[in-house]
Amino acid sequence: MVHVHDDVRDVEGRLAGIVGAGYVRVGADIAEQYGHDEALAVEPSTPGYLVRPATTDEVAGIVRLATELGVPVTARGSGSGMSGASTPAPGAILVSFERMNAVLDVDTENHLAVAQPGVTLAELDARAAEAGLMYPVYPGEMSASLGGSIATNAGGMRAVRYGVTRRHVLGLRVVLGTGEIIRTGGKVVKASSGYDLTQLITGSEGTLALITEATVKLVPRPTHQQTLLAPFTDLDTVVRAVPRIVASGLEPHILEYIDALTMAAITYTAKLSLGIPDQVRDTAQAYLLVAMENSNAGRLDEDMARLGDLVVELGALDPYLLAGSAAHKVIEAREKAFWTAKSAGANSIVDMVVPRAALPELLDTARKLAQDSGSGVVGCGHAGDGNVHLAVFQADPEIRHRLLRDMFAASMRLGGLISGEHGIGREKRSYFAELEEPATLALLRRIKQAFDPAGILNPGVLLGNLE
Amino acid sequence: MVHVHDDVRDVEGRLAGIVGAGYVRVGADIAEQYGHDEALAVEPSTPGYLVRPATTDEVAGIVRLATELGVPVTARGSGSGMSGASTPAPGAILVSFERMNAVLDVDTENHLAVAQPGVTLAELDARAAEAGLMYPVYPGEMSASLGGSIATNAGGMRAVRYGVTRRHVLGLRVVLGTGEIIRTGGKVVKASSGYDLTQLITGSEGTLALITEATVKLVPRPTHQQTLLAPFTDLDTVVRAVPRIVASGLEPHILEYIDALTMAAITYTAKLSLGIPDQVRDTAQAYLLVAMENSNAGRLDEDMARLGDLVVELGALDPYLLAGSAAHKVIEAREKAFWTAKSAGANSIVDMVVPRAALPELLDTARKLAQDSGSGVVGCGHAGDGNVHLAVFQADPEIRHRLLRDMFAASMRLGGLISGEHGIGREKRSYFAELEEPATLALLRRIKQAFDPAGILNPGVLLGNLE
Repeated sequence: MVHVHDDVRDVEGRLAGIVGAGYVRVGADIAEQYGHDEALAVEPSTPGYLVRPATTDEVAGIVRLATELGVPVTARGSGSGMSGASTPAPGAILVSFERMNAVLDVDTENHLAVAQPGVTLAELDARAAEAGLMYPVYPGEMSASLGGSIATNAGGMRAVRYGVTRRHVLGLRVVLGTGEIIRTGGKVVKASSGYDLTQLITGSEGTLALITEATVKLVPRPTHQQTLLAPFTDLDTVVRAVPRIVASGLEPHILEYIDALTMAAITYTAKLSLGIPDQVRDTAQAYLLVAMENSNAGRLDEDMARLGDLVVELGALDPYLLAGSAAHKVIEAREKAFWTAKSAGANSIVDMVVPRAALPELLDTARKLAQDSGSGVVGCGHAGDGNVHLAVFQADPEIRHRLLRDMFAASMRLGGLISGEHGIGREKRSYFAELEEPATLALLRRIKQAFDPAGILNPGVLLGNLE
Repeated sequence: MVHVHDDVRDVEGRLAGIVGAGYVRVGADIAEQYGHDEALAVEPSTPGYLVRPATTDEVAGIVRLATELGVPVTARGSGSGMSGASTPAPGAILVSFERMNAVLDVDTENHLAVAQPGVTLAELDARAAEAGLMYPVYPGEMSASLGGSIATNAGGMRAVRYGVTRRHVLGLRVVLGTGEIIRTGGKVVKASSGYDLTQLITGSEGTLALITEATVKLVPRPTHQQTLLAPFTDLDTVVRAVPRIVASGLEPHILEYIDALTMAAITYTAKLSLGIPDQVRDTAQAYLLVAMENSNAGRLDEDMARLGDLVVELGALDPYLLAGSAAHKVIEAREKAFWTAKSAGANSIVDMVVPRAALPELLDTARKLAQDSGSGVVGCGHAGDGNVHLAVFQADPEIRHRLLRDMFAASMRLGGLISGEHGIGREKRSYFAELEEPATLALLRRIKQAFDPAGILNPGVLLGNLE
């Protein structure tokens, strides 16, 4: 016992030596929130140590110490992840980036920003807006940190037009599992100078390196936006309409489907009245939410008119052009769908991605699998990207595991993946280990080994032995 | 001698057993073209064996044999690379993908194509065009193969709007250095399911894996196009205009600068008369070439008018709207700038990339370095991407090496890289080894080791010991 006690004090003391005593917490002194993110099916876990570094050098010092002692390290941004990638391994050093939250530069000539990982997406976008620019990744939760959203390659509603996070990350400063600090990429939009480490680290869920600075691309900020809500009699018709809307060249920046139950739940929760006649609402089994933006108001009007005609042609009941505030509220309510599902008692949220034209088949399969197992599955999703968010209601862990595995396998059979934007994290690593090819898993482990020879970075996330 | 002879016959025989005797050539029977690509400063080298496989399984068989024997393997598409990445290592097995050149699928609902690596970009784009779609990567040489352009992450003129190759690669089928076959990615536009192997292999210049099939994203094909040529009195004003044009939101798909000497050379070579009055031509020290496309003719006209006003405001002498055939010819002549420089006796072509607003400083530095070393540097480039193509005239290899190293170092100091789209290959690996951080180089080597433990894939390219 004395030995353990001394050892603990030593780690604490050495961490304090790196970041200052005020920025280290141990054991019971660590607030509950640091033990989990927003994943529904991952048990919280108290870290051994919480440290809040202020500089890249401090982060490197922490990682070197962890390597020396063989203690796991987990990075944490805002804790808004959906797969448990920032839930610490037992006894881990949790590195919270809350103090490294500055926007270091908004470069208006090159349309890029340099920022620290702890900055929220809301703050980053607000800074970009001051210069007439936009950081166009809106993954629903704008309190998400930049570092966390890079670590999970976050997507969100606007990805259908602007692409997911990886398309906007130009360069990184990171600390490897060896404690070495390297820079990747640059302030450039193209590169053919060695393996693309920026892209490799993006989406690696804290298992390859800790991000301490990021250079991201910004885009001109459109000045006008309009939103259309189109009710359909059935879900199948909605998702079949999506490839046609994409092919139209209208380039909506939001193209979401919402099933009737989810729409009822989110509008009820948000106390939102959409002005849709009862008769239509009673008939509608699904909705399409489409938003477009432009810096030219006239063109936007024309495009919205074309869009309205197109959705009617594709089977919509009367489409509604939502007034500014209503549009804002619907989009906000859609962003909060997760919270609605959570409060309704969902046991898991999944986010498979398939070729967008395969969505009808995926949803049909999911519905059948749910029916056969006595489970409930409702949802909405980034239809333009083929990315569905399904809330799964099934309290029995074994039945749920089988159901999820079968849904993930169906997604992969259709040319898709387990997760489009939430990541594998802790929640889905057993499915990933079960469904991914053994040769691929072995390769991923060798790549991890290249970055993190001691295996201290976020063990148990994405890869690694199952507990 | 007898032993070597037997050994050689054995390799030939075993290769013939994999691909069929008709698709193996040895030593002197191998045509000269297989010994090089288009890199100016890389010595040709005859491969030990040339094999032309027809299937992924055959490629895997070749790699397994090479691993067993410790013989290097180099992949080759059309041989149009600019950095010697398909110049074989001495004695290597050169795997030419000329028989694996099929477009397997053009998926009009999901806007993607599945193709073999040996297909040319011209053929791929023609097949996409039949469906009203476009594969928008035009790296100048449309005889380039898809596999080669993925291996080097090719860019080209249209990248300013559509992005470089990596943005269009959704999934790959590859053979690792172990001979294992894996699939990466999927038919999906977003992914957060493990490290992004698709992005890692893209741009890895044949050193990590051999690509045997690719799934690429297509985009709707615009129906109207217009091109503007704007002469400027000096180069500095041209490159300073570029960030303003990007910021305008006009989204040109071509935004090139061409210096006066290069313009004279390419128009002379192409026997091209642009109808520019002598007086303007004599004053112009640089040109901006800007093209826009749209599916709506009226909007294109409006945008071109706005662009014309903008370039005048930014200092252009009279801008010229080029008629269809003249525009086509200028763009084609610009694409052939490399051949013009080569026939003029250029000793090297470099393609540094910097933040676009840093182009004036980079070009200024390059000019001064050239002057100080008694060298000539002329060029043109993808100004919208901050990517310059400079032809370097300096016959003395030592002086040239110093000049290039200093130019690359200047690019990196400005937040840029050695190469934006040509790759490191054999030609630039000594500079890369000299200028990149040691910790990064060591990491890249460990990543290579993860894919290719025997070190047989394209040794001497990008990484590896210098000969």
